[in-house]
Amino acid sequence: MLIYVAQLNPKIGDLSHNTDKIISSIKKAKLEKADIIVFAEAAISGYPPEDLLLYDNFINKMENELNRIIEESKDLFIVIGTIRKNFNKNQKPLFNSVAVIYDKKLLGFKDKTLLPTYDVFEERRYFEPGKDQKVFEYKGKKIGVLVCEDAWAHVNDAYAKYDIDPVVELKKLKPDLMINIAASPYYYQKKDIRLNIFSEVAKTLNCQVIINNQVGANDQLVFDGHSMSFNNKGELVNLAKGFVEDHFLVDLEKPLSIYDYKKDPLSELYNALVLGVKDYFRKLNLSKACIGISGGVDSALVLCIAADALGPHNVLAINMPSRYSSLSSLEDAHKLCDNLRVELMDIPIDHLYQEYLNLLSPILAGKAFDTTEENLQARIRGMILMAISNKLGYIVLSTGNKSEMAMGYVTLYGDMCGGLGVLIDVSKTLVYELAKWVNGKKEIIPISIIEKEPSAELKANQKDRDVLPPYVIVDKVLQGYVEDHLSADEIVKKYNLEIETVKELIERIHQAEYKRRQGPPGIRVSKTAFTKGRYFPIVQGWIEQ
Amino acid sequence: MLIYVAQLNPKIGDLSHNTDKIISSIKKAKLEKADIIVFAEAAISGYPPEDLLLYDNFINKMENELNRIIEESKDLFIVIGTIRKNFNKNQKPLFNSVAVIYDKKLLGFKDKTLLPTYDVFEERRYFEPGKDQKVFEYKGKKIGVLVCEDAWAHVNDAYAKYDIDPVVELKKLKPDLMINIAASPYYYQKKDIRLNIFSEVAKTLNCQVIINNQVGANDQLVFDGHSMSFNNKGELVNLAKGFVEDHFLVDLEKPLSIYDYKKDPLSELYNALVLGVKDYFRKLNLSKACIGISGGVDSALVLCIAADALGPHNVLAINMPSRYSSLSSLEDAHKLCDNLRVELMDIPIDHLYQEYLNLLSPILAGKAFDTTEENLQARIRGMILMAISNKLGYIVLSTGNKSEMAMGYVTLYGDMCGGLGVLIDVSKTLVYELAKWVNGKKEIIPISIIEKEPSAELKANQKDRDVLPPYVIVDKVLQGYVEDHLSADEIVKKYNLEIETVKELIERIHQAEYKRRQGPPGIRVSKTAFTKGRYFPIVQGWIEQ
Repeated sequence: MLIYVAQLNPKIGDLSHNTDKIISSIKKAKLEKADIIVFAEAAISGYPPEDLLLYDNFINKMENELNRIIEESKDLFIVIGTIRKNFNKNQKPLFNSVAVIYDKKLLGFKDKTLLPTYDVFEERRYFEPGKDQKVFEYKGKKIGVLVCEDAWAHVNDAYAKYDIDPVVELKKLKPDLMINIAASPYYYQKKDIRLNIFSEVAKTLNCQVIINNQVGANDQLVFDGHSMSFNNKGELVNLAKGFVEDHFLVDLEKPLSIYDYKKDPLSELYNALVLGVKDYFRKLNLSKACIGISGGVDSALVLCIAADALGPHNVLAINMPSRYSSLSSLEDAHKLCDNLRVELMDIPIDHLYQEYLNLLSPILAGKAFDTTEENLQARIRGMILMAISNKLGYIVLSTGNKSEMAMGYVTLYGDMCGGLGVLIDVSKTLVYELAKWVNGKKEIIPISIIEKEPSAELKANQKDRDVLPPYVIVDKVLQGYVEDHLSADEIVKKYNLEIETVKELIERIHQAEYKRRQGPPGIRVSKTAFTKGRYFPIVQGWIEQ
Repeated sequence: MLIYVAQLNPKIGDLSHNTDKIISSIKKAKLEKADIIVFAEAAISGYPPEDLLLYDNFINKMENELNRIIEESKDLFIVIGTIRKNFNKNQKPLFNSVAVIYDKKLLGFKDKTLLPTYDVFEERRYFEPGKDQKVFEYKGKKIGVLVCEDAWAHVNDAYAKYDIDPVVELKKLKPDLMINIAASPYYYQKKDIRLNIFSEVAKTLNCQVIINNQVGANDQLVFDGHSMSFNNKGELVNLAKGFVEDHFLVDLEKPLSIYDYKKDPLSELYNALVLGVKDYFRKLNLSKACIGISGGVDSALVLCIAADALGPHNVLAINMPSRYSSLSSLEDAHKLCDNLRVELMDIPIDHLYQEYLNLLSPILAGKAFDTTEENLQARIRGMILMAISNKLGYIVLSTGNKSEMAMGYVTLYGDMCGGLGVLIDVSKTLVYELAKWVNGKKEIIPISIIEKEPSAELKANQKDRDVLPPYVIVDKVLQGYVEDHLSADEIVKKYNLEIETVKELIERIHQAEYKRRQGPPGIRVSKTAFTKGRYFPIVQGWIEQ
């Protein structure tokens, strides 16, 4: 029995387009003489469709598209994620479901049992949980189907715990094959967790296991694909490519050779960011990006990512020096753009800055230079980028990193301007690692950019360390407090830090909430991003004690 | 039996402060010789504490505060909302619960059964649902306790439907009194729905019903208070004040006179906006606001609200004319500020605007005047407001209304700048109604501001209607599509509009998603606000058909 696993990149809500792609894969599978084709979770709508699900019209259109797919199923067994109505009026109106189809007939649905309501997920907002596990019989095989989370509760170190373990329930039905359809978003090193979990699931079920995971970026979430299959001993035998559409074939009867899997987390992180940029532009029918280049490592890395995602000819770098910009930064920016073959525009802002100082002198006079003056420079730059965006159609990419966003060491409406924040979920530590990774084969980012001390260059002789502890410390608190939900005391113990430092940094994280709330959407690549899946009040009085 | 209903305004997360206020109310209740005191849902943390609940430390501290309250309960029966741990490791780690306390002993908990996961609520993210209903016996009376949503499923036109109706379950236990503790956020005209629902609940239970609802604004949500009680015939007998702390006493044995309730929705809407501003500032220890004044009705209304919330002496109006500003707008702005006794500062921006045009001439040259030039003016104004904010400590209030936010007829990083968007959830239609309501007793907003045609004054002879249908049409589509989730066809039928207009407006609503994502937090006063409780992808391909 031959199974075709189609790893596709849907566009959220574009139901006909997604269905066209699904049908195109069905045709390819038939050419390959496949018996079964498998698609991902919510394949017709793309995942997550969010509040589009509140519109009846949207659900009805999805049903029509499912019927088009059924029409194409002659002699082919199709397993596809879709969303279907729940007719019990005292429950949530939808199920996150799998349609199982054969020979122009809908054989049935299997509804998702475990609905995640943590992190970036809020599936209870829309869905009623499915109650039972079941198998579908086809050509003498019993095929079990689970939707994403349904398989994740099986392993102890999974994110969430549930009363029910659908894997254990399914085992009672003795499946010959288990298919898991998923839309499991990427975060740094998550693939290793996914591999471990499904290896355990395959061992428990003692059958082959196939996982089809959505690929593609949608707003802030990146789905890495990496669809996979395991033999009944829990050994990995297929692994689709990450971050691109792909497919593989599994022949249930043929002996399967073990896949030689090597970890490469930095490469995956870089590819996730590239895909995040690429799909944001492609799916919005946009092509060109502009980036304010300071000569610092963050904007340098964003320029590399943008050039890879959009092509260097679609990227415009803009250097906007003020009286506080160093000559070396200017030289570094030019060198970087030369290396990447990206056009660089110089627009000095000092004259405008002086005009603001003049106009505002009744307000500024007699008061010390402070963040007001620093922010003026950052905001003039933001305005220039936005004017270029408005007039020439370039989308501004914002370059602030997660450590700065945590500390509020960014200017609202200044360097926070942009349609997409490329590094918003990448800590400064990882920014450096990625910059070095980019330079792995040859020097693209001038080494002086990586080696110089971080500075915003918004006043004379300014260094980040004037107002922040070293980023290695910031990033430990970021990991402990934001990602792992540890208390101050626990962070002190785990990382051997001073309690005062830790408390001060936690307070700064909360204080910057109001800035982050107005930041651009950012590509999520960690377990807890500031921009999606983390909800804190701005107005609140909790003090870590 | 005398019951003291304490309607308090907590600060989210400020556990000791909130507990101090609770204890202070307990002391007052004892002076009044009350037998029972009732507090609202999640009274110790304030509602909603959001992801603060993910920190063990936070939960532990809440337990300590509950113990302080228990210590104060000598001879007093206390009903108080709190959040408690769930020790079943295969479930969500918390219950949204009610602690019932008497004479220094914790008598038990009653956990919330119906956990809302719609609109602004995502309680399944944190909580496990309670299973059973119960009554607590005290002085010969059986007291039933329900938490907010638990009572809302009883009535057919309630927002959400559930398999279980806790009111019906509770009825089997024959309570003599039902206490509902709530944190039920305000939206326009919601009080009438709440009155109807609890009137029905009282009739079903055939006993007196007391509702304690939280008061106060937290970020974007306004809780209106309006705690109430009903007799066993479902007649309203007590109604606490809205939008302020209050209390009332219910004597179970005394005959109750019917409360003479009159609708006043515009006054409530205005008060909700005032409280939204007031609590944002007070709870952040801020006092002063600045507002860009254009001579239009939106900024005029925001100025009135700010003056009422913070006092006129804490409000600074800034008029920033460009070459396109009309003289009449300038005069209107001055007259308005005189009426309100608010200081007005004039900062002409035309020179700076010209400097931008000069600096950007390589980019702008040879291209037609478009939104680029319009946005430059709006962004210069935003920068000036933010500089005043940074240097002088005024918080910028943003003045854009819901209709403009829907259409994207606002400038990102321009007039969208601000710490709080006062009218973000108020349609243009309601803005006019409120402006007239403000002028009810005497003319505060110059009538010319209300009567003139809407214009952004960002180019010569500009009118909103050049690019938008009349706001009465925009607001109907806004109501139909955003609040009521109707399809284009249904909107056409309901409001007798052209299908092309409706489809175009729906498309514009989706296209402006990227702007709204970076807007300031806004005070929610409608059933569906753009800023909280509504989640749509930016990158998506759904077209209403």
